[in-house]
Amino acid sequence: MTKRFAITMGDPCGIGPEIIVKALMERPNYIDRCIVFGSASMAEHYARLLQSPFPVHVVPSATQAALGAINIIDPYPVRVEDVPIGKVSALGGECAFRYVRAAIDSALAKEVTSVVTAPLNKESLHLAGHNYAGHTEIFGEFTHGDNYAMLLWSKQLKVIHVSTHISLREACTSLTKERVVNVIQLAHETLKKTGYETPRIAVAGLNPHAGENGLFGDEEIKEIAPAVGICKQRGIQVTGPIAPDTVFLRALKGEFDIVVAQYHDQGHIPLKLLAFDEGVNITVGLDVVRTSVDHGTAFDIAGKLVAKPDSLLYAIEIGEKL
Amino acid sequence: MTKRFAITMGDPCGIGPEIIVKALMERPNYIDRCIVFGSASMAEHYARLLQSPFPVHVVPSATQAALGAINIIDPYPVRVEDVPIGKVSALGGECAFRYVRAAIDSALAKEVTSVVTAPLNKESLHLAGHNYAGHTEIFGEFTHGDNYAMLLWSKQLKVIHVSTHISLREACTSLTKERVVNVIQLAHETLKKTGYETPRIAVAGLNPHAGENGLFGDEEIKEIAPAVGICKQRGIQVTGPIAPDTVFLRALKGEFDIVVAQYHDQGHIPLKLLAFDEGVNITVGLDVVRTSVDHGTAFDIAGKLVAKPDSLLYAIEIGEKL
Repeated sequence: MTKRFAITMGDPCGIGPEIIVKALMERPNYIDRCIVFGSASMAEHYARLLQSPFPVHVVPSATQAALGAINIIDPYPVRVEDVPIGKVSALGGECAFRYVRAAIDSALAKEVTSVVTAPLNKESLHLAGHNYAGHTEIFGEFTHGDNYAMLLWSKQLKVIHVSTHISLREACTSLTKERVVNVIQLAHETLKKTGYETPRIAVAGLNPHAGENGLFGDEEIKEIAPAVGICKQRGIQVTGPIAPDTVFLRALKGEFDIVVAQYHDQGHIPLKLLAFDEGVNITVGLDVVRTSVDHGTAFDIAGKLVAKPDSLLYAIEIGEKL
Repeated sequence: MTKRFAITMGDPCGIGPEIIVKALMERPNYIDRCIVFGSASMAEHYARLLQSPFPVHVVPSATQAALGAINIIDPYPVRVEDVPIGKVSALGGECAFRYVRAAIDSALAKEVTSVVTAPLNKESLHLAGHNYAGHTEIFGEFTHGDNYAMLLWSKQLKVIHVSTHISLREACTSLTKERVVNVIQLAHETLKKTGYETPRIAVAGLNPHAGENGLFGDEEIKEIAPAVGICKQRGIQVTGPIAPDTVFLRALKGEFDIVVAQYHDQGHIPLKLLAFDEGVNITVGLDVVRTSVDHGTAFDIAGKLVAKPDSLLYAIEIGEKL
């Protein structure tokens, strides 16, 4: 049986449907291995506008995919004229949520090996009554994972997060040795899968100067350093805690393969500042492998046929490796 | 009377003495306006090695400076052979502390208009029994300032900090509307002095996504947004709170002149990652204007005559503007 992967369309009002059609046109070798979870009518709309050589084929399940077609599972059919392209809407949020749920079910049933997600809009998602912080949390809930982490992947710099969508105060108080050990372990395993023989892992401190020997905070002494020690004993090549304001430059210069960030912005600030062309957001540690584009719904350019599929293609590529 | 500025030598075991001599050789126009607070013997040592055209002249106070010479006030004379170049030492820490104290006194006595500091080594400083987190805190204590802030200045990106050398936990709990107002005001005044007619100020949030409307933390709602509101009413052009992981890229692209960071690493991570050639660390809001190089003592290259005075020269230039 062909190993298939899923792409979820995300919010149909954004650039999701467009970049999916473009990605498959650009890499026809994916066409027979890909199942799109999304709106058939929107896919047809963009396939027509972009003069896709592949027809859109609606299927009830991943196992019934046709060859040479854009195979779509559409759990919540909508008409193109009802989709408010470029706008926040409950409809867009509901669609995005249904696509993800259906793709997760398909992955849990082993019909697809991984899920690549196109962007959803959080405001639209909430308007539709689904109060998740984002994809990561939806996957966390419906794949029953209790030990997962967000990893931002770019060629030049990779960062995995001990915590993500919680307040900074809570990020400080919820930091534990056990969680840091788990995240170091996830970093190690993920990089091994993608071809790093001995991943070199750096662990950032939580406090300025990594606490300056306890002078500004003791989380490094009580939690982070012991976690690094445990992982070293397991044979993982890991260094830290390192001052947060120097560790990213050191990794960027090639000293480390990945950085363990202690909270959302510690990892997101450097990654987003460098503004690499290609970035992938990966949820690791779940039963389902999930990768994602690193951009949003881009409502401002939705429907204008100028969106680029590069990040989506890179997300597919990394998803395949995992 | 000539307007004079002070340069403190920092730790004599580091690259401080070398870059001071080099800076004055490179910009002879500074020679008659500069008073060095540091070791006369070390200055002579490097002046000889670098074949400085200017003799070293020891003076008891800034008002007695000679023309055409490197004027030095040396509050703690040491012999070159006793200085462990390139090493952490209590002697180096004691020297660095004495130089700064003497320069502050001179500035408070209005003998010099500003102080430019060469780097000290924190470990050496502590070995000598002076338990300060750094220059900023020494200036804070001895200039009796109670409303100062650390500003990192580069041509491309400027950041001012609401808090600096405290634990991240304390940075969260100590954040107040009043402090944020003060720091926005300091940013505004500092940029006005350096020639910005209407400084465009961005204020970062504390939490991921700037709290996502209270979903992850309420400091934006309770403290930061009200502070921005007050400053807007005062006629300051200020925007925020903005998601911490996007505000720096927006500033770098030219949308803002300066970013108000809520804690040490929020501002230090982007600045240090970009690794600009020239960076200046400014303590604003004190009775004494203080600028500093953005690098450390660089013990690994101390004494090798390869250190560059660029950052010191830039610190002098910005100090003069303030």
